[in-house]
Amino acid sequence: MLSAAQFETYALYSILSVAIAGLLYAILLALQILKEDKGSPEMQKIAKAIQVGANAYLQRQFKTIALLIVVLSIALYFTAGSTYIGLGRSVAFLMGSIFSAMVGYTGMNMAVRGNVRVASAAGRSFGDALRIAYRTGTITGMLTDGLGLLGGTLILMMYGDLAYEVLLGFGFGGCLLALFMRVGGGIYTKAADVGADMVGKVERSIPEDDPRNPVVIADLVGDNVGDCAGMAADIFESYEVTIVSAMILGYAAFGHKGVIFPLMVRAMGVLGSIIGTYAVRARKEMKNAMRAITRGFTLSALVSIIGFFSFAYFYMNDIGASFEILGMRIPKVFLATLAGIVLAMSVNTLTEYFTSKRKPPVKEIVDSTQTGAATTVLSGLSIGYESTVWAILAIAGAIFASITIFGSNSLYASYGVALCGIGMLTLTGNNISMDAFGPISDNANGIGEMSGLKGEAREVLADLDSVGNTTKAITKGVAIGSAVIAAVALFGSYVESTKLPAIAVSNPYVFIGLLVGGALPFLFSSLTVRAVRGAASLIVKEARRQFNSIPGLMEGKTEPDYATCVRICTNAAQKELLVLGVLAILSPIIVGFLLHEEALGGFLAGIILTGQLLAVFMTTAGAAWDNAKKAIEDGLLGGKGSEAHKASVIGDTVGDPLKDTAGPGLNPMIKVINLISLIIAPTVVANKVLTLPVVVAVVSMVAVTAVALWYGKRESVSANE
Amino acid sequence: MLSAAQFETYALYSILSVAIAGLLYAILLALQILKEDKGSPEMQKIAKAIQVGANAYLQRQFKTIALLIVVLSIALYFTAGSTYIGLGRSVAFLMGSIFSAMVGYTGMNMAVRGNVRVASAAGRSFGDALRIAYRTGTITGMLTDGLGLLGGTLILMMYGDLAYEVLLGFGFGGCLLALFMRVGGGIYTKAADVGADMVGKVERSIPEDDPRNPVVIADLVGDNVGDCAGMAADIFESYEVTIVSAMILGYAAFGHKGVIFPLMVRAMGVLGSIIGTYAVRARKEMKNAMRAITRGFTLSALVSIIGFFSFAYFYMNDIGASFEILGMRIPKVFLATLAGIVLAMSVNTLTEYFTSKRKPPVKEIVDSTQTGAATTVLSGLSIGYESTVWAILAIAGAIFASITIFGSNSLYASYGVALCGIGMLTLTGNNISMDAFGPISDNANGIGEMSGLKGEAREVLADLDSVGNTTKAITKGVAIGSAVIAAVALFGSYVESTKLPAIAVSNPYVFIGLLVGGALPFLFSSLTVRAVRGAASLIVKEARRQFNSIPGLMEGKTEPDYATCVRICTNAAQKELLVLGVLAILSPIIVGFLLHEEALGGFLAGIILTGQLLAVFMTTAGAAWDNAKKAIEDGLLGGKGSEAHKASVIGDTVGDPLKDTAGPGLNPMIKVINLISLIIAPTVVANKVLTLPVVVAVVSMVAVTAVALWYGKRESVSANE
Repeated sequence: MLSAAQFETYALYSILSVAIAGLLYAILLALQILKEDKGSPEMQKIAKAIQVGANAYLQRQFKTIALLIVVLSIALYFTAGSTYIGLGRSVAFLMGSIFSAMVGYTGMNMAVRGNVRVASAAGRSFGDALRIAYRTGTITGMLTDGLGLLGGTLILMMYGDLAYEVLLGFGFGGCLLALFMRVGGGIYTKAADVGADMVGKVERSIPEDDPRNPVVIADLVGDNVGDCAGMAADIFESYEVTIVSAMILGYAAFGHKGVIFPLMVRAMGVLGSIIGTYAVRARKEMKNAMRAITRGFTLSALVSIIGFFSFAYFYMNDIGASFEILGMRIPKVFLATLAGIVLAMSVNTLTEYFTSKRKPPVKEIVDSTQTGAATTVLSGLSIGYESTVWAILAIAGAIFASITIFGSNSLYASYGVALCGIGMLTLTGNNISMDAFGPISDNANGIGEMSGLKGEAREVLADLDSVGNTTKAITKGVAIGSAVIAAVALFGSYVESTKLPAIAVSNPYVFIGLLVGGALPFLFSSLTVRAVRGAASLIVKEARRQFNSIPGLMEGKTEPDYATCVRICTNAAQKELLVLGVLAILSPIIVGFLLHEEALGGFLAGIILTGQLLAVFMTTAGAAWDNAKKAIEDGLLGGKGSEAHKASVIGDTVGDPLKDTAGPGLNPMIKVINLISLIIAPTVVANKVLTLPVVVAVVSMVAVTAVALWYGKRESVSANE
Repeated sequence: MLSAAQFETYALYSILSVAIAGLLYAILLALQILKEDKGSPEMQKIAKAIQVGANAYLQRQFKTIALLIVVLSIALYFTAGSTYIGLGRSVAFLMGSIFSAMVGYTGMNMAVRGNVRVASAAGRSFGDALRIAYRTGTITGMLTDGLGLLGGTLILMMYGDLAYEVLLGFGFGGCLLALFMRVGGGIYTKAADVGADMVGKVERSIPEDDPRNPVVIADLVGDNVGDCAGMAADIFESYEVTIVSAMILGYAAFGHKGVIFPLMVRAMGVLGSIIGTYAVRARKEMKNAMRAITRGFTLSALVSIIGFFSFAYFYMNDIGASFEILGMRIPKVFLATLAGIVLAMSVNTLTEYFTSKRKPPVKEIVDSTQTGAATTVLSGLSIGYESTVWAILAIAGAIFASITIFGSNSLYASYGVALCGIGMLTLTGNNISMDAFGPISDNANGIGEMSGLKGEAREVLADLDSVGNTTKAITKGVAIGSAVIAAVALFGSYVESTKLPAIAVSNPYVFIGLLVGGALPFLFSSLTVRAVRGAASLIVKEARRQFNSIPGLMEGKTEPDYATCVRICTNAAQKELLVLGVLAILSPIIVGFLLHEEALGGFLAGIILTGQLLAVFMTTAGAAWDNAKKAIEDGLLGGKGSEAHKASVIGDTVGDPLKDTAGPGLNPMIKVINLISLIIAPTVVANKVLTLPVVVAVVSMVAVTAVALWYGKRESVSANE
């Protein structure tokens, strides 16, 4: 019989091996993909242009934020009580940011290599094209899984009982990078998308992905930097933060076992994802494709649920005890994790209901297009507002389930919520595969269109694109739902770490914190929407200029100047980034030191509340407008070119920056602020006067903002010229 | 020397006399107005049509809600502990609702009589027209002042120390009626406005208020039922609720003097308003008009500030003690009230900044119209989101000021906030005069246009309309700001009345309450926006039908069928009303009995937070879009008929239901919910099982909702046909 300590060591090494196995699987898939046929020279030329544009953007992005990352990693060293922890926290922060950047960078780089191979494979068979597209996505998925698990486990093995202090740095690094990648990528992709649609579809009436459109390459680059790099970094961050909060709360509530259980669930998820994603293959039809992907998902779910149930049943049953259900002993930790899977499913169902072409909400938008753009926008707003109510009820339900399982003590209930988050993100590998599948097949379809592919191959790509739209929409709900659950768990960690008896909104200071916190997501959304709007205006003006001044462009005789549009998007995406980052970092510091720890708690609660509401509203309304437009393009109300279609395009264009920039950008923002609050909590509680390093950090960041603001102002002036 | 009790009695009788004086002043003004010339037969015919439409709507509205009012007044009888209080509460509830209805009904009826007299006076002189328009508005203002003060004082005189219990009924009645009048009127006016603009301006390119437009009468009726009746009832409710909460908190904090002070401030405000509004008169120019109105406001402010400063200085200086400022003893209660006036001014400045044609935000929207409707909508969204951040900071500042004055004890700080609300609404008489001046001169201008008025008289009316737009916009900020301050004070009353040591969001149940409460304003907005959207679609279809099927309509040879459009609006405005009312009434009851009093507190905090954010976002964005459109109509970017103008009209149309229906509707909703919570608090705290009367009330209300829902469903089906 093994002793408890021995078992723990074995368990940790097993988890580590699984993490490494996940990474090896990703490498294996990458080698497989790179061996595939690269397609015709024409295709390769387009793919190359996308690749160059995408890399230029990411390099520029990394350069923009490098200084801030360096400043912060130094500042973090001073936030800890000892050199040992301080060093660990700084290194973990760098590790978190680098892992996050790696996931985004690699995911994007594989996507821009996979897309052309999918386009080429479409000439051979549907099955090949599907396999390549899906597996390219899986690479990113397994990187996320593997690196997230690896980081958490390594820190735990090295720091043992002090891991909590270091994990904060790891989580913070991941979230901050995700914030930049999500928002930067989101601004890029939507500026290009809105610009391409407004000049191409609305003004010039040329189809999507038409090579005559000067914005088309920027648009395809955008799919990669936003939907691949940004999305991957964002989910990595949720994956990482749920594990960080589960480990913090687990340790406080149940000691070592409380920490090992979430890691074990994750490891089972990685195994499940490896098995399930590898099983995805299909023959010819579209129906088969969706079925194959779903089958892979179900297989993964079964493997991992059986796995973590066994672990809970045989090893964890003393933790939080068990329920007797139908004569069977069901461990509480298992139930809480299972609640996460149920929540994921219900959030998916809600997302599906509010955004599917076949359901009443989208039909309502379609109906409203008949009376013009204004009613189209209004109906989308009302549907988005409604959807967010249901989503918040689902999340309130998850918290309620956690109370029912673990009781209403804040610590235990929060641990239950954290496990719920762990459960939701168990199958991150599959989720990201499905999500990245969207932009990859979208790109492949674009390359097919631009390179003049014809016949069956073209149809295969169009079908894949359509499947990709569905899978992308399905996984979006989970991304947001899990983000809020993670934020609620972090809030629980904050309560735990400040040891406050209560964070009472009946205290006027806390109420002020609540108000100010609740306002922040609105400020954030205002800035991101404005950034997209400004960038899109620049793009529209440039595209109009090209159509008006380049002779033979509309006839397809001359090539437009793609590079200028790519450059405009790249620059625009950087402009507001630092302001947003510094806003997220400074606001909790200011509230914490001015109004103290209890008000800071109110501030966090306010941010979680309105952040969640706005995020779901924006993503759902955006997707609903998008699908209303697609439904009309499928032939409703006169189809393409009708007045109804024009109204639907305006609705879609309004929704684009909401659903792909502002909405998803709120998730990492909420968590960056929560993590900063956790990091500064001990200093705030000790009521220390601002220490020198904090002053240095704050001043340097304010300086960075000032420069960024000045820079932004200058650019916006030149934009208005 | 008088004893304290004697002084109190004298004070109360003086306050009562001032309230009656205010009412007499209103009657005097009404008699003056009715004596004015009623204009040409053509004008009278149009005015008559407006009057008939407006009255038909209000009667229908009162019929729709009558049953619910009766059920509630019976249910309220059972919520109190004794027959004495129960009866008082029921009667006070009826009094509150009837006062609110009276203010709305009379205000509207004076407006529909004043408008034609203004149109007629425009032929004589600018000064006459201005005086009649302004004084017609003042009638509503003084009714609000007088009835609000009368009700509160009477209840205090009759119930003494138990007044608190009865005042809740009074506040509840006022809020509930305001909710119905605001939302019903808002749906009506915006359905008509959107419909008139979309078919008239966008599709047929005919000017505003053109008699060929079938929706024009409905549109003019809408100005009265929404901007006059709805607005008046809404401000009456804020006026009433601030006094209710100040009396509740004042009694708890400082006994009798704490109650008398807010009443006295109000009485001074009434005196100030009488003097200031009567002084408003101008000669010829527009500039003079704005200056005269501002001068009246300043005069009123001076009279009332000097009045309540003296009272505070000589009688209230022992209450909460004083500060020594520059060697002078300044009573704390005076400072808190003054903070309200400062808050009103800063909120006005903010509103002005975000919605003025001459300031950067509106210029940004104007700029974005060049790239189409989608960017126009997006820039309005980002400006609205930004404005709400500043507004909430202003309110957080007011709470902070209150803490600074009275300390952070919840009770005293809340009393400070309540006094701040009293301060903000001191000059309600002037505010409503300015606010109602808008729709009255708008209507007069419409009557002028339709009756074919020419030359100088026409210009006078256009100038008045423009002044009205400014005054209306200025006062809107105060209405929202004071609503939130009132809600915060009510929240303080809730904390006080439940005697809870803390309402802690760190308690998972309270967190659930916070989430659910925060979602409610989104649900509410979704329903109201949908109602307007649906009604506007019906109107658009009807107007299109008339243009297509009535021969000679576009040539102005045949009259359109105005009555059908009026009927559609009247019906549409009722459809969602009961659902919204029942939602507001049932939600706190359900949360309270399921999750208990602390979670109900979290629920209230959530509603206040997101309600405030959404309300300011919606009203500001709407006004900014409106003014961007007007700036283009003044000649920017090609003026009327240009592509930029079309985009700006779409922006304005999106903003209309936000700024005039959903946004302002949130204010009474927040307060209805707060008051219900206060009323059920003792039962919830006592953890009583649902008592029979509550069950009866709940069941009957659910039944009413079910019927309303079924009815709504049926109508929306027929709308889709």
